[in-house]
Amino acid sequence: MELHVVINGRKDLAGQLYQQLRSAIESGRLAAGTQLPPSRLLAEQLSVSRKTVSDTYAQLTYENFLTGVIGKGTYVNARPAQIVRKQSHTQLASSAVIEYWRNMPDFLRHPALEGSLRYDFIGGATSKGQFPHDDWRRCTAHALRQIGGSKGFYSVPEGLPALRNAIARHIAFSRGVNCQDEDVVVCNGAQQALDLISRVLNQPGSRVAIEDPGYPPARLLFSSHGAEVVAVPVDEQGLVVEKIPDGTRMIYVTPSHQFPLGMPMSQARRVALLERAYELGAIIIEDDYDSEFRYEGRPTDSLQSLDERGIVAYVGTFSKTLLPELRLGYAILPPAILEAVIRAKQLTDRHTSTLPQWAMAKFIAEGCLLRHIRRCHAIYAGRRERLLARVATDLSPWLEAIPTDAGFHMVLLFKVPVDLPLLIELARKVEVGLYPLDPFYFREPSRLGLLMGFGAIETLDIDTALDRLRDILQQVI
Amino acid sequence: MELHVVINGRKDLAGQLYQQLRSAIESGRLAAGTQLPPSRLLAEQLSVSRKTVSDTYAQLTYENFLTGVIGKGTYVNARPAQIVRKQSHTQLASSAVIEYWRNMPDFLRHPALEGSLRYDFIGGATSKGQFPHDDWRRCTAHALRQIGGSKGFYSVPEGLPALRNAIARHIAFSRGVNCQDEDVVVCNGAQQALDLISRVLNQPGSRVAIEDPGYPPARLLFSSHGAEVVAVPVDEQGLVVEKIPDGTRMIYVTPSHQFPLGMPMSQARRVALLERAYELGAIIIEDDYDSEFRYEGRPTDSLQSLDERGIVAYVGTFSKTLLPELRLGYAILPPAILEAVIRAKQLTDRHTSTLPQWAMAKFIAEGCLLRHIRRCHAIYAGRRERLLARVATDLSPWLEAIPTDAGFHMVLLFKVPVDLPLLIELARKVEVGLYPLDPFYFREPSRLGLLMGFGAIETLDIDTALDRLRDILQQVI
Repeated sequence: MELHVVINGRKDLAGQLYQQLRSAIESGRLAAGTQLPPSRLLAEQLSVSRKTVSDTYAQLTYENFLTGVIGKGTYVNARPAQIVRKQSHTQLASSAVIEYWRNMPDFLRHPALEGSLRYDFIGGATSKGQFPHDDWRRCTAHALRQIGGSKGFYSVPEGLPALRNAIARHIAFSRGVNCQDEDVVVCNGAQQALDLISRVLNQPGSRVAIEDPGYPPARLLFSSHGAEVVAVPVDEQGLVVEKIPDGTRMIYVTPSHQFPLGMPMSQARRVALLERAYELGAIIIEDDYDSEFRYEGRPTDSLQSLDERGIVAYVGTFSKTLLPELRLGYAILPPAILEAVIRAKQLTDRHTSTLPQWAMAKFIAEGCLLRHIRRCHAIYAGRRERLLARVATDLSPWLEAIPTDAGFHMVLLFKVPVDLPLLIELARKVEVGLYPLDPFYFREPSRLGLLMGFGAIETLDIDTALDRLRDILQQVI
Repeated sequence: MELHVVINGRKDLAGQLYQQLRSAIESGRLAAGTQLPPSRLLAEQLSVSRKTVSDTYAQLTYENFLTGVIGKGTYVNARPAQIVRKQSHTQLASSAVIEYWRNMPDFLRHPALEGSLRYDFIGGATSKGQFPHDDWRRCTAHALRQIGGSKGFYSVPEGLPALRNAIARHIAFSRGVNCQDEDVVVCNGAQQALDLISRVLNQPGSRVAIEDPGYPPARLLFSSHGAEVVAVPVDEQGLVVEKIPDGTRMIYVTPSHQFPLGMPMSQARRVALLERAYELGAIIIEDDYDSEFRYEGRPTDSLQSLDERGIVAYVGTFSKTLLPELRLGYAILPPAILEAVIRAKQLTDRHTSTLPQWAMAKFIAEGCLLRHIRRCHAIYAGRRERLLARVATDLSPWLEAIPTDAGFHMVLLFKVPVDLPLLIELARKVEVGLYPLDPFYFREPSRLGLLMGFGAIETLDIDTALDRLRDILQQVI
């Protein structure tokens, strides 16, 4: 195969590469079944970063132009004839917007959906096999009785009173959040809370500050509202507050357990952040996604609990404490935006399904949630200990952990240069799922790392998995 | 009380009235507890329409400046001191967007939430007491087993394969919709389907055509995406296709059962609409909200079934066929926008809760949905007959029905001038809930009417309710 790609200058390298590969495939110059060069090789040839090439491959794979075969390489797909034919019938006037959405990176499709590995350090997965069936079944039976007695109308956009009350009491207790029932808006997970808050704050051109590294779905979401998203670096104390640019309207942070790095935001930075936001007239979104699990020292309360001016919107979720697929989360909103967000929720999907709402209200009110969190906490603490112990001993020549005291993932940074894609590929071959840190960076990262989730892997499997990782490290470095 | 309002010219009458009333209340010139003049009276004094005044009152009521007391009048509220204090702390940079959302008319808050009447002709409510408890409980038990066996990850944005399959088969059968499982996207009710489709088609300034009269939540939603929403009149054949302006990107219609008027779109208009949309490069949204209930003649298939070019996005819901508060709906999408809508769904809330999804998949697959529709169909048919019989006989001096053959509401038009707000108020006093047609108009309506829902009222109550209506009509006209 001959692949002719010409890169001009240093601007939009990924865009140039994407366009040329795509047109080569569409025109048939790159025939179906052709194997593309490994991303490492092509990056060297073109003098671009490995990330530029692998991102472009990922994009084209997502768009069905390419298929990646693990351990083999990346291949050009046959174009599905039927879809091409049907699309060619229509010349849509608004195709630029459609293209924007169609090309949205698929960050949110959970990798494990494609088949999970025996030893999987995937992030964002709750502890398998720990789901409290009996409690949940009883609470769902309660929900069914409530629904059976309903009048057949729509419910209220802000959420069922019973659930708003349960949430307010739960997070006041567990996270020191300062709120009344009326400040709570029930959402379909934290992602919808971010969507609604951003909708009522931003318009095309609004400036939004996010953490770098940070949470890509938040960045993509805010961009989709037309916001100018500015990536502000984090250091060991959290967001570097003085780098938040003037004109910022909304600041998205993860102060309790920085995503993805894991350290908490220092007290000094919290105070500075609140001051800076107030000065800007900006709203802070505090995404407190998993900090009900805390392991060491004095619990860090929420940033919201320090806010005396009503500028923090606190976002939480039951995806980490119970189950992601229930799609239940919440926002605790300051008066300035509460009513606006409720209206946005109503116009978007009227309200969250009452079936999981009633069940969750009962589940919290009866103490099942706290019991479940305590049970999972003990499990996660054991897994975390195991990981830290190994990183401190036999894995220490290659890896070090970023200190963290919450959640159920940690970041391991490489102390030495490594061919990370190769490492990940070799690990997959022995059923160990590893996930690189660099997709969470907005700019090129200074160091390579791994995001190690310990929600899905069994405690007794951790040592086996890390033995295999060690063997591979010995082999490739 | 002296109320000084000055209206200049004929532009933005509602805006002028709103500003003056609001500033009078905020400055304390209109003190807490003051009764405002009846809207009829103020409208006469200012030479503006009754609708202008009552919309302004409604807006101020919604914003908590006013309270309406049924049978008494409209009063100025005391301002809640705490909220004013807290808000004054923050000068938000982005307050214009927040204000936009905060002032969003509250069309979607179901009136019956505030307490329903004994004889309520409310629209959009399913038949009370008909909910199939036993079937639904069994299907939910199935859902719980599926969730219990889950891996603790997120699910897929497009919806569970089992539910996509069940929906595709159901609507192919019941509505002649031409689709495969892969064309189905599961949403939180039809409202979210509209949100997602509009997001991927529109950007600020995009032109969207809707029906007038039409469905206000759709209009407000499309406007909130920055679209320029153009109201196109409907006549007895449905949307007047030649009035769709050039540059339109999206056309929102209800061809099977025009909302709110009720007539189906004629075959000629359907063909013309498809041609016009194709010529414009526009996507048509077909909102087929309740046409699984059909009473007369040959069933009219969906508009989507005539579409050979992939330009119709079909939207359906289980709110009318099962229960609104479950929040389950779906879109059947043409290839041009399918992938984009899935990405938008994913970024918005990742996916719809799997608990109701699994239950609904089972409920459809086992035939429970069709059985339930058949049962409700028989009930609605009886209620519809009763309504039509009375309109054709003793109510005929005042009212006539717009012919319709589907759904569970109909429109009655007045043949004579009537003080409609007074009529509605008198009816409420005798526990009869009536709902005016004019809020569904974009322009001023040429005739007054009532939207008569028969989902919530019991069949045996209809004659009593209409007796009372007749007595009031005799009294006020």
